Amino acid sequence: MRFLSFVTPDGRPGWGKATDQGIVDLSAVAPTLREAIAAGRLAGATGSTVYAESEIKYLPVIPSPDKILCVGLNYRSHVLETGRELPAKPSIFTRFANTQVGHGQPMIRPRVSEKFDYEGELAVVIGKTCRHVARADALSVVAGYACYNDGSIRDWQRHTIQYTPGKNFPATGGFGPWLATPDELGDLGRRAIRTRLNGQEMQHATFDDLIFDVPALIEYCSTFTQLEPGDVIITGTTGGVGAFREPPVWMKAGDVVEVEIEGIGTLRNTIADE
Amino acid sequence: MRFLSFVTPDGRPGWGKATDQGIVDLSAVAPTLREAIAAGRLAGATGSTVYAESEIKYLPVIPSPDKILCVGLNYRSHVLETGRELPAKPSIFTRFANTQVGHGQPMIRPRVSEKFDYEGELAVVIGKTCRHVARADALSVVAGYACYNDGSIRDWQRHTIQYTPGKNFPATGGFGPWLATPDELGDLGRRAIRTRLNGQEMQHATFDDLIFDVPALIEYCSTFTQLEPGDVIITGTTGGVGAFREPPVWMKAGDVVEVEIEGIGTLRNTIADE
Repeated sequence: MRFLSFVTPDGRPGWGKATDQGIVDLSAVAPTLREAIAAGRLAGATGSTVYAESEIKYLPVIPSPDKILCVGLNYRSHVLETGRELPAKPSIFTRFANTQVGHGQPMIRPRVSEKFDYEGELAVVIGKTCRHVARADALSVVAGYACYNDGSIRDWQRHTIQYTPGKNFPATGGFGPWLATPDELGDLGRRAIRTRLNGQEMQHATFDDLIFDVPALIEYCSTFTQLEPGDVIITGTTGGVGAFREPPVWMKAGDVVEVEIEGIGTLRNTIADE
Repeated sequence: MRFLSFVTPDGRPGWGKATDQGIVDLSAVAPTLREAIAAGRLAGATGSTVYAESEIKYLPVIPSPDKILCVGLNYRSHVLETGRELPAKPSIFTRFANTQVGHGQPMIRPRVSEKFDYEGELAVVIGKTCRHVARADALSVVAGYACYNDGSIRDWQRHTIQYTPGKNFPATGGFGPWLATPDELGDLGRRAIRTRLNGQEMQHATFDDLIFDVPALIEYCSTFTQLEPGDVIITGTTGGVGAFREPPVWMKAGDVVEVEIEGIGTLRNTIADE
């Protein structure tokens, strides 16, 4: 099943499921996808209003999560690219909800920097309130997966050793197109993720290259924080980011950036200037 | 004026103002202090229900801010203590709302670490939605000030260079006792902040020792994020933290930790084990 958040043709925020017949409005089941996850109302949710994809405007999969936890340097290939050693613990930073945009919406390059870089990532959406989750139980707290583009303003990311400023400019993080439930994916480790800029492949990995896999990240994060339904863990990016290319590649207005994950779909955003 | 969030004697979350006659319930003016700030309803807000301080339970001044931005290494004395050079840009990390506790509530030492440290800080609460605020205009977006204890789990803070895990254990951040409006403070630079552990002074500074003062922090933060009413900027701690003492000092169950700011008041918390 594929669940998404969107603006309805009459301008109302809503959520629903993507089906072969169109997008079924499920807003009567719960006010938001986040609340539907919390109430355990995804399975079996039905509605009678169906939209064509062209009628709706995608919102971030979870527009207002309680927490967005991001992982840095989590693919062997990306760590080697930056010249670092493999880390003993996950590197965790955060994004605010107002940094997110949905599938098809512009990602905004701020006026204070030209160093706007892509980072194609797998996003994990949490399904239950949980703390101290053991690795063996971790997949039981996952509501589903989505594509994320952890768009980064590289000079602001490196003002100090804390990444926060460069990861939190408004509308720099693409999150979509939808939440794919775990049954859509099967064995996650063999799935591939690709990032394309204007049609050219820039990043490509399979999830078995993750240093800290999804259960390890849930175990670690749930030790220092209580996770809630709708919380998002963005699992890190792989080699090929623009900052480490020679010469560096920065996203500019009019560019089209795509993050494709096998079994989920393709998140596509254009770049626009602030 | 001193505004606070609390649980009423009948167990309802509310907010009000601290006066010589007691705590005036202002929950009829707006549902929360954050919403009252957003609606510009603080000045002149009145109510007829008055509680004694002993009847209420303090909540964090803003229990659910949209954003909590924290500044690292922002006093000359603390930077010198850590052996670093003065930074060119503020070091910004974040806390989640569920890390906060009110005045008088226990701060929780997690079971996975004994390295629980205090950090007495000045918290700035934002009063208006704003972006790209120039230094000269920065104080016009301040709703008020409070004491903050940015309680830190030092080993988890240093798992990697990102501080997030060590700053986000539940109930590790004291925030109170109330929001003091700017007229309560006068010239902020000459005011002192002190942290006491079991009555012994551990930290002491005046705000003219800040490397990045409140206007500089608002200018910097509002460049990379849109600030909202109720957002919190925690301005960093001064020398004297437990981690850099010989031998190190860690907070343990039963300890009493206080952060006092002249012109605001004293935030007091006990330490309890998870």
